[in-house]
Amino acid sequence: MNLVLLLEGDWVEEGRRVRLEGRRRRHVLEIHRAGLGDELRVGRIDGATGRGRIVRLDEEALEMEISLEADPPPPLALTLVLALPRPPVLRRTLISVTSMGVKRIVLLNARAVEKSFWQSRALDENAIFEQCVLGLEQARDTRMPEVLLRNRFRPFVEDELPAMVAGAKAFVAEPSAKTDPAPGPGEPVLLAVGPESGWSDHELLGLENAGLDRISLGARPLRVETALPALLARFL
Amino acid sequence: MNLVLLLEGDWVEEGRRVRLEGRRRRHVLEIHRAGLGDELRVGRIDGATGRGRIVRLDEEALEMEISLEADPPPPLALTLVLALPRPPVLRRTLISVTSMGVKRIVLLNARAVEKSFWQSRALDENAIFEQCVLGLEQARDTRMPEVLLRNRFRPFVEDELPAMVAGAKAFVAEPSAKTDPAPGPGEPVLLAVGPESGWSDHELLGLENAGLDRISLGARPLRVETALPALLARFL
Repeated sequence: MNLVLLLEGDWVEEGRRVRLEGRRRRHVLEIHRAGLGDELRVGRIDGATGRGRIVRLDEEALEMEISLEADPPPPLALTLVLALPRPPVLRRTLISVTSMGVKRIVLLNARAVEKSFWQSRALDENAIFEQCVLGLEQARDTRMPEVLLRNRFRPFVEDELPAMVAGAKAFVAEPSAKTDPAPGPGEPVLLAVGPESGWSDHELLGLENAGLDRISLGARPLRVETALPALLARFL
Repeated sequence: MNLVLLLEGDWVEEGRRVRLEGRRRRHVLEIHRAGLGDELRVGRIDGATGRGRIVRLDEEALEMEISLEADPPPPLALTLVLALPRPPVLRRTLISVTSMGVKRIVLLNARAVEKSFWQSRALDENAIFEQCVLGLEQARDTRMPEVLLRNRFRPFVEDELPAMVAGAKAFVAEPSAKTDPAPGPGEPVLLAVGPESGWSDHELLGLENAGLDRISLGARPLRVETALPALLARFL
C-alpha cells in the first residue's frame, strides 16, 4: 500500500478527518509500523492525493487529519477488453492493470471462457471494487476504473464496441499476428486480449469487423498475467 | 502446458520413446483430455521441439513416440538481475520471465530483501527447476534458463556484474528516473530490478558504478510481477 485510499464513508469530518478500520488500519500498523503523529501518503477516491497524520489510534480504529493538495498520476488512455479469466487470475489482473492506470475494463465472454467463471464471487461488485482499490493503492492513484461485465460476446462486439473504437487506435492481441503495436504516445487505445487458448476464428473476425487490428508480442504464448503488463507497456 | 517438456530421465528408448508419470501425465489426461493415438506438442529439454503420439496409457504412466524436428523459439538476449522477491512472487516470476525467453536470472540480495526469503524452499534447486519448466512449457520453449543465487550484494556487483555488463546495454529500473529504455532490437541487455520498496541509494550507486543506466516506466510504483513483464516488453 503506497497510498491509503480514502473512501466516502471514511470521513468523520468532511475533507479534514477520517476514521479507518479493518484492513487499512491493520496494514498501517503492521506493515508501515506507523504510530501516533506519523504521516502517511493518502488519496481521496476519485480526488486529490496528500498526507494524513495519525491523530488517534485504538483497538478498533485509526484516525487521521488529512491535507490534500496534489493530482493523482495521469490515467492511461486505454480501454481494455479482456476475455474473462479464471477467478484467481482475474483478481491479480484487476490489481495489475489498475496499477498501470487503465480506467476502463470490459470483461467479455468468449468461446474458450468457462461458463462457471461467470458465477464466481470474484465478479461481485464489492470484490471487483476491492481489487481495484489494491491496484490504486499500489500505484498511488485515486481514480477508480470502470469495470463492465459483458457475458455475451456478439451483442457487445456488434452494438457497443464500435462506439468505443471510434477515435482510438484499436488492437486485438493474437500471437500469430505480424504487426507490432506502435501508436503515438498518448493516443487513445482500445486493446482486446483473449483467453489463453486464443480467440476463436469467428471471434477474431467479429473484432476485426469492429475495427481492431491484430498485434502480437511474438510467437510465445504467454499467461494472461504476463501478457497484459507486457502489452500495456507498449502504450505507456 | 502448451508443450510437454521432455526431461533426460523420461526416455525409455533414446530419442524415440518417453514415459511420463505424475503432473505431466495428469495434465495431458485431465486438461488436454488426450487419449491413445492423440498427438501433442513436445520438446526435449535444451533441444528441439516436435510431436509426441500417445502409444500407451495406464494407471501409472503415459508413453509417447516422439519425433523432433523444429527449433525452439529464439531466446531473449537479456540477463535479469532481480532483488529476491518474497517466495510466492518468486515462483510466479520465474514462470513469467522464463516464458518471455529470459535465459539468465540472477537473484540478488538488497537491503530491502527480508533475510528469511533466503531460507525459503522456493530457492531449492528442484523448486526453481520446476517453475522454469512451467515457464518453458507455457511458451513452447525448451532452453532452460540459468538461475544464479547471490545473497551478498556487494561482491556480486563489484566482482561479477562488470563482466556481465560488458558488451551489453545495461539498465536499472528506478521509478524516479527520466530515461525510457530504448536499445536497438536484438542488442544484448542486462536489466536490474529492485525490491518493491526500491534500491537503497548505496545500491543504486553501486549499480551505476558497474555501468547500469537508470530507466523508468513512469512514476507509478508497480508490483514486481507487473513491472517485470512490462519492462521486458521494452526489449522484445
